[in-house]
Amino acid sequence: MTSSPDSSADDATNAGPLTIAQIAERAGVSVATVSKVVNGRVDVAPGTRDLVEALIRQHGYRRQKRPMKANPLVEVVFHELQGLYGIEILNGVAEVARGEHLGVVVTELQGRHTPGRGWVEDVLARRPTGIISVFSSLTDRQLDQVRSRDIPLVMVDPTGEPSHEVPSVGAGNWNGGLAATRHLLDLGHRRIAVITGPEHMLAARARLDGYRAALDMAGVAVDPDLVCHGDFQIEDGRRFTRELLRLPDPPTAVFACNDGEALGVYQAAAEAGLRIPRDMSVVGFDDLPMAEWNIPPLTTIRQPLKEMATTAAEMVVALSQGRPLPRARIELATELVVRESTTPPVERS
Amino acid sequence: MTSSPDSSADDATNAGPLTIAQIAERAGVSVATVSKVVNGRVDVAPGTRDLVEALIRQHGYRRQKRPMKANPLVEVVFHELQGLYGIEILNGVAEVARGEHLGVVVTELQGRHTPGRGWVEDVLARRPTGIISVFSSLTDRQLDQVRSRDIPLVMVDPTGEPSHEVPSVGAGNWNGGLAATRHLLDLGHRRIAVITGPEHMLAARARLDGYRAALDMAGVAVDPDLVCHGDFQIEDGRRFTRELLRLPDPPTAVFACNDGEALGVYQAAAEAGLRIPRDMSVVGFDDLPMAEWNIPPLTTIRQPLKEMATTAAEMVVALSQGRPLPRARIELATELVVRESTTPPVERS
Repeated sequence: MTSSPDSSADDATNAGPLTIAQIAERAGVSVATVSKVVNGRVDVAPGTRDLVEALIRQHGYRRQKRPMKANPLVEVVFHELQGLYGIEILNGVAEVARGEHLGVVVTELQGRHTPGRGWVEDVLARRPTGIISVFSSLTDRQLDQVRSRDIPLVMVDPTGEPSHEVPSVGAGNWNGGLAATRHLLDLGHRRIAVITGPEHMLAARARLDGYRAALDMAGVAVDPDLVCHGDFQIEDGRRFTRELLRLPDPPTAVFACNDGEALGVYQAAAEAGLRIPRDMSVVGFDDLPMAEWNIPPLTTIRQPLKEMATTAAEMVVALSQGRPLPRARIELATELVVRESTTPPVERS
Repeated sequence: MTSSPDSSADDATNAGPLTIAQIAERAGVSVATVSKVVNGRVDVAPGTRDLVEALIRQHGYRRQKRPMKANPLVEVVFHELQGLYGIEILNGVAEVARGEHLGVVVTELQGRHTPGRGWVEDVLARRPTGIISVFSSLTDRQLDQVRSRDIPLVMVDPTGEPSHEVPSVGAGNWNGGLAATRHLLDLGHRRIAVITGPEHMLAARARLDGYRAALDMAGVAVDPDLVCHGDFQIEDGRRFTRELLRLPDPPTAVFACNDGEALGVYQAAAEAGLRIPRDMSVVGFDDLPMAEWNIPPLTTIRQPLKEMATTAAEMVVALSQGRPLPRARIELATELVVRESTTPPVERS
């Protein structure tokens, strides 16, 4: 039997990932074009790009001889760079990056609608050693693009269920929600409101479920009037507390699912002439550096943000050096930090 | 006359910057060694490095044929990455960087004592398009190293008098100090304390001088007991306000030279059972996003941090493209933002 012209390419299918030449052959384009796609260049027709990426996804992509050297950069991607949360994360990543002589590149996904080319193309063009995605989800297409270039990716507190292939770092959000609510129950509160985060964020859902579990275990029914769906903004804390205070039987305590919302609760309490904790107890979540400077200092759930970031950075470094990760998901513990914003409820007459 | 062996090198002196070969000849080392120094490599004896850099400093350095291409990165260097100040700056730089497809690399100088090689060597090895130094001063040696590689450098709010060769962006600090103090004088305050920032920071000195000027123009003598030398930390605001409140004739108003210190003033006032503004007026400086969430919302001097950062980034981009800067120093205006922490003083009986 003689080989047909394309049998060598078919043979390659069974031999594992394709070389750049084999991808080019199958796509019916030049090697240069495949190379452009792999390197995030923009001057490729969208249809061609899709085809080449589909082939890479299907068969894998084997670098020829010398793989392109990654640059000593780690990319940190935020959904939105705002507030002290980001500073904690950056400091954690920087600690690891310094030791590895990696530069820390910061981007926010808000910028993805940049004309010309998007966020992921800019990242790919920089050929980073790895990517840490914080509190944000890449699209499937972005994930494919990153994966097809063999760039290690680790997610911190992913908003959605991460695919099994993407390692991630989170915190004990459910346990934190449980601990916050139990603390209030232990003080004697029964009318406990919760102000949550966005429902599409797993971390926010887990905190709410911890709240429900604590009430359930204490035999306290969850009152739907006391469950407020916020968006992790200070303003949510203020707005919902105003509403809660107008209820016929207002809560004596509020569990705000982040410290920002807790600060908003303080605002509404001050407006209403209520004193914290005498007239209303408040628990937050995160323990950002400002929490202890609230007046009174905020009782909150400490989330080890800096440690989560160093853990993610260490995972990226390990992956970039070809070291396997012992586990794809790491969850760090949260803990209750009792300060001065919680106290037993005053008996109502 | 015949040429002596080194006369060609001497001739080159008069012809402007030296090539890498001429520097190697003068230093008595190989071209490869000079190249290592220029590229920030560590495997060069310190004495050799010093000699090569001294030659470059003395004569300048002319790139041969193809200059080494800079990477699409802009480095942002903080003295210390802490608080919302840094987030504002990063967002400003990111805005310009996105449009130019530059990655934003964040480092803090705290990391300079990294063993092996220091901050500046890591930066040089990344060959960035430019460097923005925020609220921090590079050493003369670091400046020389950056300059000898032709990397554009712009300083934001430099701590010391920037050399004339380094372009910089700042804010109207003196005017801000004046406006803050005048606002309190206009309300009728005469016992006005000030809590300053570190004396080695020009911005802090300028704010204090603005305070003095306002008092002087109003015919109010500066009382040394009311001038507190802080370090821009929240704790300074608390500590000094406690001391001020123990004075026989305590101030009725405090000008805190950043918003963090102002928050500390709030703490001390709350401890002492004083209400802001009824019992004590407070003015801050910066107008960070938290200022409006203080209880009561903080009257402060708005410093356009994000705009300062975009300006610096635009200057770096211009320099990297060989466009001359219209001016080496840009100062953006500050403005008084009146919220609810200031009111006329209560008459004392």
